[in-house]
Amino acid sequence: MRVALLGGTGDIGEGLSLRLAFHTDHEIIVGSRDRGRAREKAKEYRNELHSLGEDGSITGTINPEAAKGADIVIAAVPPYHIRDTVVDLLDEIRGSILVSPAVGMTHDDDGAHYNPPDDGSVTELIASTVPDDVPVVGAYHNLSADRLANLEAELNIDVLLVGDDADAKRAVSLLTSDIEGLRPLDAGQLTNAHEVESLTPLLINLAANNDGLENVGV
Amino acid sequence: MRVALLGGTGDIGEGLSLRLAFHTDHEIIVGSRDRGRAREKAKEYRNELHSLGEDGSITGTINPEAAKGADIVIAAVPPYHIRDTVVDLLDEIRGSILVSPAVGMTHDDDGAHYNPPDDGSVTELIASTVPDDVPVVGAYHNLSADRLANLEAELNIDVLLVGDDADAKRAVSLLTSDIEGLRPLDAGQLTNAHEVESLTPLLINLAANNDGLENVGV
Repeated sequence: MRVALLGGTGDIGEGLSLRLAFHTDHEIIVGSRDRGRAREKAKEYRNELHSLGEDGSITGTINPEAAKGADIVIAAVPPYHIRDTVVDLLDEIRGSILVSPAVGMTHDDDGAHYNPPDDGSVTELIASTVPDDVPVVGAYHNLSADRLANLEAELNIDVLLVGDDADAKRAVSLLTSDIEGLRPLDAGQLTNAHEVESLTPLLINLAANNDGLENVGV
Repeated sequence: MRVALLGGTGDIGEGLSLRLAFHTDHEIIVGSRDRGRAREKAKEYRNELHSLGEDGSITGTINPEAAKGADIVIAAVPPYHIRDTVVDLLDEIRGSILVSPAVGMTHDDDGAHYNPPDDGSVTELIASTVPDDVPVVGAYHNLSADRLANLEAELNIDVLLVGDDADAKRAVSLLTSDIEGLRPLDAGQLTNAHEVESLTPLLINLAANNDGLENVGV
Protein backbone atom coordinates (compact mmCIF):
# COMPACT_ATOMS: atom_id res chain seq x y z
CA MET A 1 0.00 0.00 0.00
CA ARG A 2 1.10 3.56 -0.65
CA VAL A 3 0.81 5.94 2.32
CA ALA A 4 1.45 9.68 1.94
CA LEU A 5 2.21 11.94 4.88
CA LEU A 6 1.42 15.56 4.07
CA GLY A 7 3.63 17.57 6.37
CA GLY A 8 5.71 14.45 6.88
CA THR A 9 8.68 16.64 7.77
CA GLY A 10 6.98 17.88 10.97
CA ASP A 11 7.04 16.23 14.40
CA ILE A 12 4.04 13.94 14.17
CA GLY A 13 4.72 13.34 10.46
CA GLU A 14 8.24 12.20 11.31
CA GLY A 15 6.98 9.85 14.02
CA LEU A 16 4.32 8.28 11.81
CA SER A 17 6.66 8.01 8.79
CA LEU A 18 9.33 6.26 10.83
CA ARG A 19 6.89 3.91 12.54
CA LEU A 20 5.10 2.98 9.32
CA ALA A 21 8.39 2.32 7.54
CA PHE A 22 9.79 0.43 10.52
CA HIS A 23 6.82 -1.85 11.26
CA THR A 24 5.21 -2.33 7.82
CA ASP A 25 6.13 -2.99 4.20
CA HIS A 26 4.09 -0.08 2.88
CA GLU A 27 5.54 2.54 0.57
CA ILE A 28 5.86 5.78 2.57
CA ILE A 29 5.91 9.16 0.82
CA VAL A 30 6.94 12.17 2.89
CA GLY A 31 5.20 15.32 1.65
CA SER A 32 6.15 18.95 2.26
CA ARG A 33 5.56 22.35 0.72
CA ASP A 34 9.30 22.31 -0.10
CA ARG A 35 10.58 19.52 -2.32
CA GLY A 36 14.18 19.78 -1.10
CA ARG A 37 13.11 19.63 2.53
CA ALA A 38 10.94 16.56 1.86
CA ARG A 39 13.82 14.74 0.16
CA GLU A 40 16.26 15.67 2.90
CA LYS A 41 13.95 14.45 5.69
CA ALA A 42 13.13 11.22 3.81
CA LYS A 43 16.87 10.55 3.56
CA GLU A 44 17.26 11.26 7.29
CA TYR A 45 14.46 8.78 8.07
CA ARG A 46 16.06 6.12 5.83
CA ASN A 47 19.38 6.63 7.63
CA GLU A 48 17.60 6.21 10.96
CA LEU A 49 16.10 2.93 9.79
CA HIS A 50 19.46 1.71 8.43
CA SER A 51 21.10 2.49 11.77
CA LEU A 52 18.67 -0.03 13.30
CA GLY A 53 19.42 -2.59 10.60
CA GLU A 54 16.09 -2.03 8.85
CA ASP A 55 15.22 -1.20 5.31
CA GLY A 56 12.15 0.83 4.51
CA SER A 57 10.68 2.53 1.49
CA ILE A 58 10.59 6.25 2.27
CA THR A 59 10.83 8.96 -0.37
CA GLY A 60 10.09 12.67 -0.25
CA THR A 61 8.36 15.15 -2.56
CA ILE A 62 5.90 18.06 -2.56
CA ASN A 63 2.49 17.42 -0.95
CA PRO A 64 0.36 17.09 -4.14
CA GLU A 65 2.81 14.61 -5.71
CA ALA A 66 2.93 12.67 -2.44
CA ALA A 67 -0.86 12.43 -2.35
CA LYS A 68 -1.27 11.36 -5.96
CA GLY A 69 -2.02 7.65 -6.18
CA ALA A 70 -1.72 7.11 -2.42
CA ASP A 71 -4.17 4.66 -0.85
CA ILE A 72 -4.10 6.58 2.40
CA VAL A 73 -3.15 10.26 2.77
CA ILE A 74 -2.39 11.47 6.31
CA ALA A 75 -2.69 15.25 6.70
CA ALA A 76 -0.04 15.69 9.40
CA VAL A 77 0.01 19.48 9.11
CA PRO A 78 -0.83 22.09 11.75
CA PRO A 79 -4.59 22.74 12.07
CA TYR A 80 -4.33 26.32 10.79
CA HIS A 81 -2.69 25.07 7.56
CA ILE A 82 -4.72 21.97 7.03
CA ARG A 83 -7.55 23.46 5.00
CA ASP A 84 -5.22 25.27 2.57
CA THR A 85 -3.06 22.18 2.25
CA VAL A 86 -6.03 20.00 1.35
CA VAL A 87 -7.58 22.54 -1.04
CA ASP A 88 -4.34 22.46 -3.05
CA LEU A 89 -4.67 18.74 -3.79
CA LEU A 90 -8.39 18.10 -4.23
CA ASP A 91 -7.68 16.43 -7.59
CA GLU A 92 -4.80 14.32 -6.29
CA ILE A 93 -6.72 12.78 -3.37
CA ARG A 94 -9.61 11.39 -5.43
CA GLY A 95 -9.53 7.66 -4.74
CA SER A 96 -7.60 8.05 -1.49
CA ILE A 97 -8.67 7.82 2.13
CA LEU A 98 -7.82 11.07 3.91
CA VAL A 99 -6.73 10.84 7.55
CA SER A 100 -6.92 13.87 9.87
CA PRO A 101 -4.68 13.79 12.98
CA ALA A 102 -4.59 17.53 13.74
CA VAL A 103 -5.99 19.18 16.88
CA GLY A 104 -6.63 22.89 17.41
CA MET A 105 -5.24 23.93 20.79
CA THR A 106 -4.30 27.06 22.67
CA HIS A 107 -1.81 27.16 25.52
CA ASP A 108 -1.70 29.52 28.49
CA ASP A 109 -0.69 29.45 32.17
CA ASP A 110 -3.55 27.02 32.88
CA GLY A 111 -2.20 24.52 30.35
CA ALA A 112 -3.56 23.32 27.03
CA HIS A 113 -7.11 24.06 25.87
CA TYR A 114 -9.10 22.58 23.02
CA ASN A 115 -9.78 25.22 20.40
CA PRO A 116 -11.98 23.70 17.71
CA PRO A 117 -12.84 25.37 14.41
CA ASP A 118 -16.41 26.50 13.73
CA ASP A 119 -17.11 23.18 11.99
CA GLY A 120 -16.88 21.48 15.39
CA SER A 121 -13.56 19.72 14.87
CA VAL A 122 -10.62 19.74 12.48
CA THR A 123 -11.71 16.33 11.20
CA GLU A 124 -15.15 17.68 10.26
CA LEU A 125 -13.54 20.79 8.74
CA ILE A 126 -11.52 18.52 6.46
CA ALA A 127 -14.56 16.42 5.62
CA SER A 128 -16.49 19.54 4.62
CA THR A 129 -13.56 20.66 2.42
CA VAL A 130 -13.03 17.54 0.30
CA PRO A 131 -15.43 16.06 -2.28
CA ASP A 132 -18.08 13.72 -0.82
CA ASP A 133 -16.47 10.66 -2.41
CA VAL A 134 -13.22 11.14 -0.48
CA PRO A 135 -13.71 9.35 2.86
CA VAL A 136 -12.23 11.12 5.87
CA VAL A 137 -11.08 9.31 8.99
CA GLY A 138 -9.94 11.06 12.16
CA ALA A 139 -7.01 9.24 13.82
CA TYR A 140 -3.64 9.63 15.56
CA HIS A 141 -4.72 12.77 17.47
CA ASN A 142 -3.43 11.60 20.81
CA LEU A 143 0.00 10.23 19.93
CA SER A 144 3.24 11.62 21.30
CA ALA A 145 5.47 12.57 18.37
CA ASP A 146 8.58 12.00 20.49
CA ARG A 147 7.58 8.51 21.46
CA LEU A 148 6.68 7.59 17.89
CA ALA A 149 9.99 8.88 16.58
CA ASN A 150 11.97 6.90 19.14
CA LEU A 151 11.83 3.53 17.41
CA GLU A 152 13.22 1.77 20.45
CA ALA A 153 10.37 3.00 22.68
CA GLU A 154 7.46 0.64 23.30
CA LEU A 155 4.17 2.28 22.37
CA ASN A 156 1.25 0.40 23.98
CA ILE A 157 -1.22 3.15 23.01
CA ASP A 158 -4.85 3.17 21.93
CA VAL A 159 -5.64 5.01 18.68
CA LEU A 160 -9.17 6.38 18.53
CA LEU A 161 -10.76 6.37 15.06
CA VAL A 162 -13.78 8.34 13.88
CA GLY A 163 -15.36 8.30 10.43
CA ASP A 164 -18.62 7.84 8.57
CA ASP A 165 -17.24 5.42 5.94
CA ALA A 166 -16.95 1.97 7.51
CA ASP A 167 -14.60 0.60 4.82
CA ALA A 168 -12.24 3.56 5.13
CA LYS A 169 -12.25 3.30 8.90
CA ARG A 170 -11.45 -0.40 8.62
CA ALA A 171 -8.51 0.33 6.28
CA VAL A 172 -7.04 2.88 8.68
CA SER A 173 -7.67 0.48 11.56
CA LEU A 174 -5.67 -2.23 9.77
CA LEU A 175 -2.85 0.20 8.94
CA THR A 176 -2.76 1.23 12.60
CA SER A 177 -2.63 -2.31 13.94
CA ASP A 178 0.33 -2.96 11.60
CA ILE A 179 2.34 -0.68 13.90
CA GLU A 180 3.44 -2.67 16.93
CA GLY A 181 1.99 -1.27 20.14
CA LEU A 182 -0.88 0.68 18.60
CA ARG A 183 -4.41 -0.60 19.21
CA PRO A 184 -7.11 0.92 16.99
CA LEU A 185 -10.49 1.59 18.67
CA ASP A 186 -13.70 2.74 17.03
CA ALA A 187 -14.76 6.07 18.61
CA GLY A 188 -17.74 6.53 16.31
CA GLN A 189 -18.76 8.84 13.48
CA LEU A 190 -17.30 12.16 12.30
CA THR A 191 -19.70 13.95 14.65
CA ASN A 192 -17.77 12.33 17.51
CA ALA A 193 -14.46 13.87 16.40
CA HIS A 194 -14.84 16.79 18.81
CA GLU A 195 -14.52 14.50 21.84
CA VAL A 196 -11.54 12.62 20.40
CA GLU A 197 -9.65 15.79 19.49
CA SER A 198 -10.31 17.41 22.87
CA LEU A 199 -8.70 14.44 24.58
CA THR A 200 -5.31 15.70 23.39
CA PRO A 201 -5.12 18.83 25.59
CA LEU A 202 -6.52 16.78 28.48
CA LEU A 203 -3.72 14.24 28.18
CA ILE A 204 -1.16 17.06 27.90
CA ASN A 205 -2.53 18.66 31.09
CA LEU A 206 -2.58 15.36 32.97
CA ALA A 207 1.04 14.70 32.02
CA ALA A 208 2.04 18.23 33.08
CA ASN A 209 0.19 18.22 36.42
CA ASN A 210 0.87 14.73 37.73
CA ASP A 211 4.15 12.98 38.46
CA GLY A 212 4.75 9.77 36.60
CA LEU A 213 2.08 10.38 33.98
CA GLU A 214 4.32 11.42 31.11
CA ASN A 215 2.93 8.58 29.02
CA VAL A 216 -0.74 8.76 29.94
CA GLY A 217 -3.39 7.50 27.50
CA VAL A 218 -6.89 6.10 27.34
CA MET B 1 -16.07 15.20 57.55
CA ARG B 2 -19.60 15.90 56.42
CA VAL B 3 -20.30 15.23 52.71
CA ALA B 4 -23.60 16.20 51.11
CA LEU B 5 -24.83 14.72 47.84
CA LEU B 6 -27.41 16.96 46.19
CA GLY B 7 -29.45 14.66 44.01
CA GLY B 8 -28.07 11.79 46.03
CA THR B 9 -31.14 9.74 45.08
CA GLY B 10 -30.11 9.64 41.40
CA ASP B 11 -27.82 7.12 39.72
CA ILE B 12 -24.43 8.77 40.22
CA GLY B 13 -25.53 10.14 43.59
CA GLU B 14 -26.41 6.64 44.70
CA GLY B 15 -23.06 5.26 43.56
CA LEU B 16 -21.06 8.01 45.28
CA SER B 17 -23.14 7.84 48.49
CA LEU B 18 -22.69 4.09 48.77
CA ARG B 19 -18.97 4.19 48.01
CA LEU B 20 -18.26 7.06 50.40
CA ALA B 21 -20.20 5.34 53.20
CA PHE B 22 -18.62 1.98 52.42
CA HIS B 23 -14.98 3.05 52.19
CA THR B 24 -14.79 6.05 54.56
CA ASP B 25 -15.95 7.18 57.99
CA HIS B 26 -17.42 10.43 56.71
CA GLU B 27 -20.98 11.49 57.48
CA ILE B 28 -22.98 11.20 54.23
CA ILE B 29 -26.12 13.29 53.68
CA VAL B 30 -28.32 12.34 50.74
CA GLY B 31 -30.12 15.40 49.38
CA SER B 32 -33.21 15.51 47.20
CA ARG B 33 -35.95 17.98 46.26
CA ASP B 34 -38.31 15.59 48.10
CA ARG B 35 -37.62 14.94 51.79
CA GLY B 36 -39.48 11.62 51.86
CA ARG B 37 -37.61 10.35 48.81
CA ALA B 38 -34.25 11.35 50.36
CA ARG B 39 -35.05 9.52 53.61
CA GLU B 40 -36.28 6.45 51.77
CA LYS B 41 -33.13 6.23 49.59
CA ALA B 42 -30.83 6.81 52.58
CA LYS B 43 -32.52 3.91 54.34
CA GLU B 44 -32.12 1.77 51.21
CA TYR B 45 -28.39 2.61 51.13
CA ARG B 46 -28.01 1.78 54.83
CA ASN B 47 -29.69 -1.57 54.23
CA GLU B 48 -27.32 -2.25 51.35
CA LEU B 49 -24.34 -1.55 53.62
CA HIS B 50 -25.76 -3.71 56.40
CA SER B 51 -26.23 -6.58 53.96
CA LEU B 52 -22.46 -6.45 53.42
CA GLY B 53 -21.79 -6.34 57.15
CA GLU B 54 -20.87 -2.65 57.09
CA ASP B 55 -22.13 0.29 59.08
CA GLY B 56 -22.17 3.72 57.54
CA SER B 57 -23.58 7.09 58.44
CA ILE B 58 -26.11 7.95 55.72
CA THR B 59 -29.13 10.16 56.30
CA GLY B 60 -31.50 11.88 53.88
CA THR B 61 -33.12 15.31 53.72
CA ILE B 62 -33.95 18.13 51.28
CA ASN B 63 -31.01 19.60 49.32
CA PRO B 64 -30.58 22.89 51.24
CA GLU B 65 -30.56 21.11 54.61
CA ALA B 66 -28.12 18.54 53.26
CA ALA B 67 -25.76 21.28 52.10
CA LYS B 68 -25.87 23.27 55.32
CA GLY B 69 -22.68 22.72 57.32
CA ALA B 70 -21.26 20.20 54.87
CA ASP B 71 -17.51 20.36 54.24
CA ILE B 72 -17.98 19.10 50.70
CA VAL B 73 -21.19 19.40 48.66
CA ILE B 74 -21.40 17.23 45.54
CA ALA B 75 -23.98 18.49 43.02
CA ALA B 76 -24.97 15.11 41.57
CA VAL B 77 -27.95 16.49 39.68
CA PRO B 78 -28.61 16.50 35.92
CA PRO B 79 -26.86 19.37 34.10
CA TYR B 80 -30.12 21.11 33.15
CA HIS B 81 -31.16 21.25 36.85
CA ILE B 82 -27.80 22.07 38.33
CA ARG B 83 -27.96 25.85 38.16
CA ASP B 84 -31.44 26.06 39.74
CA THR B 85 -30.45 23.57 42.41
CA VAL B 86 -27.38 25.61 43.36
CA VAL B 87 -29.19 28.96 43.26
CA ASP B 88 -31.62 27.60 45.88
CA LEU B 89 -28.85 27.05 48.42
CA LEU B 90 -26.39 29.90 47.93
CA ASP B 91 -26.58 30.70 51.65
CA GLU B 92 -26.21 27.09 52.78
CA ILE B 93 -23.02 26.40 50.77
CA ARG B 94 -20.98 29.29 52.22
CA GLY B 95 -17.98 27.60 53.79
CA SER B 96 -18.35 24.44 51.72
CA ILE B 97 -16.42 23.15 48.76
CA LEU B 98 -18.78 22.56 45.84
CA VAL B 99 -18.07 19.62 43.55
CA SER B 100 -19.51 19.46 40.02
CA PRO B 101 -19.73 15.98 38.42
CA ALA B 102 -22.37 16.70 35.75
CA VAL B 103 -21.81 16.56 31.97
CA GLY B 104 -24.10 17.96 29.29
CA MET B 105 -24.60 15.36 26.57
CA THR B 106 -26.89 14.62 23.68
CA HIS B 107 -27.47 11.17 22.25
CA ASP B 108 -28.37 10.19 18.69
CA ASP B 109 -27.71 7.36 16.25
CA ASP B 110 -24.02 8.31 16.16
CA GLY B 111 -23.70 7.87 19.93
CA ALA B 112 -23.10 10.38 22.70
CA HIS B 113 -22.01 13.96 22.02
CA TYR B 114 -20.66 16.57 24.37
CA ASN B 115 -23.13 19.44 24.69
CA PRO B 116 -21.56 22.12 26.89
CA PRO B 117 -23.42 25.18 28.19
CA ASP B 118 -22.46 28.64 26.93
CA ASP B 119 -20.09 29.07 29.88
CA GLY B 120 -17.84 26.41 28.31
CA SER B 121 -18.56 23.60 30.78
CA VAL B 122 -21.02 22.72 33.54
CA THR B 123 -18.22 23.14 36.09
CA GLU B 124 -17.60 26.73 34.93
CA LEU B 125 -21.35 27.40 34.86
CA ILE B 126 -21.52 26.39 38.53
CA ALA B 127 -18.45 28.48 39.37
CA SER B 128 -20.04 31.54 37.76
CA THR B 129 -23.26 30.92 39.75
CA VAL B 130 -21.87 30.69 43.29
CA PRO B 131 -20.20 33.48 45.32
CA ASP B 132 -16.46 33.89 44.67
CA ASP B 133 -15.56 32.55 48.11
CA VAL B 134 -17.16 29.16 47.42
CA PRO B 135 -14.46 27.06 45.72
CA VAL B 136 -15.70 24.82 42.90
CA VAL B 137 -13.97 21.59 41.91
CA GLY B 138 -14.94 19.51 38.87
CA ALA B 139 -14.70 15.76 39.57
CA TYR B 140 -16.35 12.35 39.10
CA HIS B 141 -17.51 13.14 35.54
CA ASN B 142 -16.29 9.89 34.06
CA LEU B 143 -17.48 7.35 36.60
CA SER B 144 -19.94 4.59 35.82
CA ALA B 145 -22.87 4.87 38.24
CA ASP B 146 -23.54 1.14 37.94
CA ARG B 147 -20.00 0.18 38.84
CA LEU B 148 -19.93 2.57 41.79
CA ALA B 149 -23.23 1.23 43.12
CA ASN B 150 -22.04 -2.36 42.91
CA LEU B 151 -19.95 -2.39 46.08
CA GLU B 152 -18.44 -5.75 45.20
CA ALA B 153 -17.03 -4.43 41.89
CA GLU B 154 -13.38 -3.37 41.82
CA LEU B 155 -13.05 0.19 40.54
CA ASN B 156 -9.45 0.86 39.45
CA ILE B 157 -10.45 4.19 37.84
CA ASP B 158 -8.73 7.56 37.49
CA VAL B 159 -10.70 10.58 38.68
CA LEU B 160 -9.79 13.81 36.89
CA LEU B 161 -9.98 16.96 39.03
CA VAL B 162 -10.14 20.57 37.86
CA GLY B 163 -10.31 23.69 39.99
CA ASP B 164 -8.70 27.06 40.64
CA ASP B 165 -8.49 26.69 44.44
CA ALA B 166 -5.54 24.43 45.28
CA ASP B 167 -6.70 23.71 48.86
CA ALA B 168 -10.18 22.75 47.73
CA LYS B 169 -8.78 20.55 44.98
CA ARG B 170 -6.53 18.85 47.53
CA ALA B 171 -9.49 18.19 49.85
CA VAL B 172 -11.49 16.57 47.05
CA SER B 173 -8.40 14.64 46.00
CA LEU B 174 -8.05 13.23 49.53
CA LEU B 175 -11.77 12.38 49.71
CA THR B 176 -11.42 10.59 46.37
CA SER B 177 -8.40 8.56 47.38
CA ASP B 178 -10.32 7.40 50.47
CA ILE B 179 -12.45 5.35 48.08
CA GLU B 180 -10.62 2.15 47.25
CA GLY B 181 -9.82 1.91 43.56
CA LEU B 182 -10.17 5.61 42.70
CA ARG B 183 -6.99 7.51 41.82
CA PRO B 184 -7.31 11.32 41.79
CA LEU B 185 -5.37 13.13 39.04
CA ASP B 186 -4.94 16.88 38.62
CA ALA B 187 -6.34 17.89 35.22
CA GLY B 188 -5.73 21.60 35.75
CA GLN B 189 -7.82 24.72 36.29
CA LEU B 190 -11.53 25.38 35.78
CA THR B 191 -10.77 26.47 32.21
CA ASN B 192 -9.72 22.86 31.57
CA ALA B 193 -13.13 21.48 32.62
CA HIS B 194 -14.36 21.37 29.01
CA GLU B 195 -11.84 18.67 28.09
CA VAL B 196 -12.56 16.61 31.21
CA GLU B 197 -16.33 16.73 30.72
CA SER B 198 -16.11 15.87 27.02
CA LEU B 199 -14.22 12.70 27.91
CA THR B 200 -17.49 11.22 29.19
CA PRO B 201 -19.26 10.89 25.81
CA LEU B 202 -15.98 9.65 24.31
CA LEU B 203 -15.75 6.83 26.86
CA ILE B 204 -19.42 5.99 26.31
CA ASN B 205 -18.84 5.76 22.55
CA LEU B 206 -15.69 3.65 22.95
CA ALA B 207 -17.57 1.24 25.20
CA ALA B 208 -20.45 1.05 22.73
CA ASN B 209 -18.34 0.57 19.60
CA ASN B 210 -15.65 -1.84 20.76
CA ASP B 211 -15.95 -5.32 22.26
CA GLY B 212 -14.47 -5.80 25.68
CA LEU B 213 -14.24 -2.09 26.47
CA GLU B 214 -17.24 -1.83 28.78
CA ASN B 215 -14.94 -0.54 31.54
CA VAL B 216 -12.70 1.81 29.56
CA GLY B 217 -11.04 4.76 31.31
CA VAL B 218 -8.04 7.05 31.11
